[in-house]
Amino acid sequence: MSATADSMEHDVQAYMQQVGRQARAAARLVAAATPGAKNKALLEMAAAIEAAAAQLADANRKDLDAGRNNGLSDALLDRLELTPARIEAMAAGLRQVASLPDPVGQISDMAIQDNGLQIGRMRVPLGVIGIIYESRPNVTADAAALCLKSGNAAILRGGSEAIHSNRAIAQCIQSGLDAAGLPVHAIQVVDTTDRAAVGQMITMPEYVDVIIPRGGKGLIERISNEARVPVIKHLDGICHIYIDEHADQDKASRVSYNAKTQRYGTCNTLETLLVHQSIAAEVLPGLLQQYRDAGVELRGCERTCALDGGVTPATAEDWDTEYLAPVLSIRLVDNLDQAIDHIEGHGSHHTDAIITEDLHNSQRFLREVDSSSVMVNASTRFSDGFEYGLGAEIGISTDKLHARGPVGLEGLTSLKYIVLGDGHTRS
Amino acid sequence: MSATADSMEHDVQAYMQQVGRQARAAARLVAAATPGAKNKALLEMAAAIEAAAAQLADANRKDLDAGRNNGLSDALLDRLELTPARIEAMAAGLRQVASLPDPVGQISDMAIQDNGLQIGRMRVPLGVIGIIYESRPNVTADAAALCLKSGNAAILRGGSEAIHSNRAIAQCIQSGLDAAGLPVHAIQVVDTTDRAAVGQMITMPEYVDVIIPRGGKGLIERISNEARVPVIKHLDGICHIYIDEHADQDKASRVSYNAKTQRYGTCNTLETLLVHQSIAAEVLPGLLQQYRDAGVELRGCERTCALDGGVTPATAEDWDTEYLAPVLSIRLVDNLDQAIDHIEGHGSHHTDAIITEDLHNSQRFLREVDSSSVMVNASTRFSDGFEYGLGAEIGISTDKLHARGPVGLEGLTSLKYIVLGDGHTRS
Repeated sequence: MSATADSMEHDVQAYMQQVGRQARAAARLVAAATPGAKNKALLEMAAAIEAAAAQLADANRKDLDAGRNNGLSDALLDRLELTPARIEAMAAGLRQVASLPDPVGQISDMAIQDNGLQIGRMRVPLGVIGIIYESRPNVTADAAALCLKSGNAAILRGGSEAIHSNRAIAQCIQSGLDAAGLPVHAIQVVDTTDRAAVGQMITMPEYVDVIIPRGGKGLIERISNEARVPVIKHLDGICHIYIDEHADQDKASRVSYNAKTQRYGTCNTLETLLVHQSIAAEVLPGLLQQYRDAGVELRGCERTCALDGGVTPATAEDWDTEYLAPVLSIRLVDNLDQAIDHIEGHGSHHTDAIITEDLHNSQRFLREVDSSSVMVNASTRFSDGFEYGLGAEIGISTDKLHARGPVGLEGLTSLKYIVLGDGHTRS
Repeated sequence: MSATADSMEHDVQAYMQQVGRQARAAARLVAAATPGAKNKALLEMAAAIEAAAAQLADANRKDLDAGRNNGLSDALLDRLELTPARIEAMAAGLRQVASLPDPVGQISDMAIQDNGLQIGRMRVPLGVIGIIYESRPNVTADAAALCLKSGNAAILRGGSEAIHSNRAIAQCIQSGLDAAGLPVHAIQVVDTTDRAAVGQMITMPEYVDVIIPRGGKGLIERISNEARVPVIKHLDGICHIYIDEHADQDKASRVSYNAKTQRYGTCNTLETLLVHQSIAAEVLPGLLQQYRDAGVELRGCERTCALDGGVTPATAEDWDTEYLAPVLSIRLVDNLDQAIDHIEGHGSHHTDAIITEDLHNSQRFLREVDSSSVMVNASTRFSDGFEYGLGAEIGISTDKLHARGPVGLEGLTSLKYIVLGDGHTRS
């Protein structure tokens, strides 16, 4: 946190320009900071959060009270709440990011050309990262940790409903930066609830190198449409499992059940189950009963409904819907090609899996399904940065350029070319 | 080339939508094509171009005649011309791309997690690439080769002044695809000179995954502003050389002379020379005389002018200018920090070099200068895909995300996660 906005609430544009200038200046210093200094800052932030647990709870109570007065839903109030366990988890998250390998300055692909020039690539920070998010205040600490560790400066814009909590967390972040001798403007929390701040932030390419929106589809689409800065975005997750004709039926049932029911509201949850018609009569009855026992509503194609009277007919819209709820659509397909066609036509290129014991079909599926994560015999729920060994994630990208899938520290960096000569001239 | 536009010139939007749909459908087939089929197509295209040399020259003559009638400058007419040597170079370029390693399907970072899941990344095509370029018709063949080899479908929109040449090249491309059993819509040349085609092409995210504009700064800025599709862009190259206090004076002179004078109109040409004040009196007099002998106009800071009466004072604007001409600006600096400050403040993050024998200074420069290529003791003119061993390039990216610097086959692909389980469920 940096400039107090009090004096300039009349001028959000000037305030955001100042935040941007400060971030750009800090970015150069953070990019050159040693791993030791960055890690010290992260550990100091963690200690500050633990020491300020009572103040964080007080600030959070103000947000919760205001939220209740403003009629926020129970689900939103739950996201907003900083319980003691969540405060401890923020500190633990900061310490965990400190323990990850530092990506900055790694050199790869170094090779000597015919003329003796040594050419390779160095991993470097992106510069200034703008993060726009909604109610959960713990994102403030998580995002700060990932941006700092990857050598970037960050401008964090949380939801207005969490402003008191975010201000309190920002103080802990700032004291950590200060204790490690790093510029306090390296991580700035936007200190105004004026919505114009977002519009300003996404149109300052001179100060912001990339925007990462975290939140609902509406927020992300609006930002993508209006941004004049590159956006790393996470749109919906319409995830599929295809039970192949050569599937092991036990694996098929266990994995498909887990992918739908382990959590309903996450982007990597199964939304549409595709089943080869030759195996459907064997595998579906037991599996569909399991789903029903768990309270999952089932909507199917004609052939699925013919197989099981408890399935209601799916509409065309179902195949294009991310339910984020205990609802599953089911379609029987004639072969692998039809399964891939369905996924390419209706999916969101997030995470899709095949259940099969057939090597050829598994290889075709891996190659031909154009999603950020493609799986064989595993639950789509594994699609996240922690499960992939990234240590942490700032989100799951459904973009094709730059970073695809879970985005960890590497996704917050890029590669520049370095060229070592000895007086080489071009002829 | 695909749909004949004749029947729909009244409706560019419908035509481009059709081109887009065809490209999207072809993209899936090209993504799954074997290296053998893609290489066969490239070799057949090369043979078709050689066999059609006379027809290409005829078509090109129509463009040249129209260009002269329309008052095109000699420089533009030169770019537009397809000499026999340039026709042969197109064929050679296609054969060279065929000889490069195929990036599609390469698997990296494969590792086993604690739970036994095998997780890695597979290199995959981006999908459909739209390329918008100006007069040079040889770009049609070059871009087709790189897109096809990297498993992408392409929509190519050349300059209207080259429409006859591009149509003739498109026929060769199409016959090559056909001979290799690949879909002819994999490479489509937009067959209308209506400018609305560009506006349509950059706003069809459902059919186009990325736009690569090649041309002047005006074209690229306009496309970046209006595109609703990600853009890999190449803005200006304001390249610097910093002659450090610990430079070898012979290397400094040779490299600085080469970087400015080897070619004036290229983006990796030196535009501003920074010289440590303690070495300036030794190194500059001879070097500046060399520049003058080559016809280079010299504009300098006050201290440079004081050192050499033949240098005219630089204005503030000079430090922010890409001359693309025999003009050089020169500034004396007090130390490495001031050199880096100047480059970060006035450069375009393209290519910058230090001349030094000091290890510490070289390492600081490599790390702290935030450009797509950073060099030590080498001419900035080396910054291109061929010199870097990429085999070919589609352009030099000044973006920070996805691809930075020369963009070859790898820059036209991305990495998706692949996950191999054995019935794994998440708990």
